[in-house]
Amino acid sequence: MEEERYEIRLGGSGGQGIILAAVILAEAAGLHGDNHVCQTQSYGPEARGGKSKAEVVISSREIDYPKVIRMDLFLAMNQASLDAYFYDFKPNGLLVVDATFVKQTPTSRAIAIPFTRIAREQFEQEMVANVVALGALAHLCPRVEEAHLLEAVLARVPPHTQTLNREAFAAGLAAAQKIKLENLPRSIVPDQEEQEI
Amino acid sequence: MEEERYEIRLGGSGGQGIILAAVILAEAAGLHGDNHVCQTQSYGPEARGGKSKAEVVISSREIDYPKVIRMDLFLAMNQASLDAYFYDFKPNGLLVVDATFVKQTPTSRAIAIPFTRIAREQFEQEMVANVVALGALAHLCPRVEEAHLLEAVLARVPPHTQTLNREAFAAGLAAAQKIKLENLPRSIVPDQEEQEI
Repeated sequence: MEEERYEIRLGGSGGQGIILAAVILAEAAGLHGDNHVCQTQSYGPEARGGKSKAEVVISSREIDYPKVIRMDLFLAMNQASLDAYFYDFKPNGLLVVDATFVKQTPTSRAIAIPFTRIAREQFEQEMVANVVALGALAHLCPRVEEAHLLEAVLARVPPHTQTLNREAFAAGLAAAQKIKLENLPRSIVPDQEEQEI
Repeated sequence: MEEERYEIRLGGSGGQGIILAAVILAEAAGLHGDNHVCQTQSYGPEARGGKSKAEVVISSREIDYPKVIRMDLFLAMNQASLDAYFYDFKPNGLLVVDATFVKQTPTSRAIAIPFTRIAREQFEQEMVANVVALGALAHLCPRVEEAHLLEAVLARVPPHTQTLNREAFAAGLAAAQKIKLENLPRSIVPDQEEQEI
C-alpha cells in the first residue's frame, strides 16, 4: 500500500536554489491532482555556514504537521547540508546527492549525479543546477509526475530562460534514467515496522 | 513586553507573488539578527480559485509549530484570499490590503494601500506590486528591519531589475509612512487576555 505521507527534504548552500526548487516541487504536486502539500523553510542561528534546508510534505489527506517526520527522499546539493540534515531518514528512503560537491554519503541507498557539473559543462550556467536536479527528481520521486514538474519549472523561471531550463530539466531526467533503482540495497528494517516501534 | 512569536499571513491570487514575498520576509528576518523563522505554504483542493496563502512565523526562540496560530499581520492582495484566510486574527492585529482589489475589510484595524495601482502607474510593471507591498511592510511590521528587508528583496530579484525593485520598495514605504498607525481603533479585547481564555 502506498503510504499516504511522502516527505522530501532539500539541502544546499545559499546560492544553490534549494528554496525555489522546493516551491516548484510543491506546486507540481499541489496544483495538480488531489494532493495536499505543505512546503516549509526554516531560518535561524543553526542555518548558517553554507547550509539551508527546505521541506515538502505531500499527502493524500489534509496535513496536520507540515514538517518532515520521516524522510522518503533527501536531495543534498552540498556536503555541509548533507551532514547537518541527514536525520529522520527512512531505512528504505532515497538519498540523492550532487556529486560535484558531496564526497561522503551516510547510507548505501544513495544516488550521486553531478548536477552542478552538468549545469556548468552542458549549459555554462551553474545556476540551473537546481533545475537539473528537479529533472532527476521527476524520475526518482514517485509522487510527482514528470509533466507537472516541468510545467511548474517553466511557470517559475523568467520567460527568456524557458529553453535553457527545459534543456536543463531534460539533462537531469536523462542522467537519472540511467540509474537502475532496483540495484540499490534494501534495508533489512522495513519502513513500516520501524514506524510502529 | 514584546511577545516572542510574531505571525504573518500573506494571501493573494497565483500571479501576485505572495510566495516570493513570504520567502523574502523570512530571509530578512531570519538571515539577520537572532530570529528563528519558519516560512510555509500550503497547496491543496482548498487553495484553488484565485487564492494562495503563505505564512511567516518569527520568534526569538526555537519554533515548535511552524504555522500561524494567531495572526499579528495579514497582507491580503485580493478579496478572495482575504475572505478565505481571515481567521485567527489577533484583536489588535493589523490587516494590510491592496486597495486595488480589496473593497471590503472585516476589521476596522485595516490599512488600505493600492499596491497594484502604484506598480502599474508609477512603474508600468504590475508584477512589482509585491515589492511595493514589502516596502509598506518595512514600515508596518515591527519585527523586520527596513534595511534587512530591502537587502533581502535585492538578493532575490534578477540583477537587471534592481533599480526598478529598489524604487518599488521605496514607493510602498512612502505610502505606508503617510498612515498614522496610532489613529487605528484598538480592540477592547487585549491580545494577551484573549490568549489566556
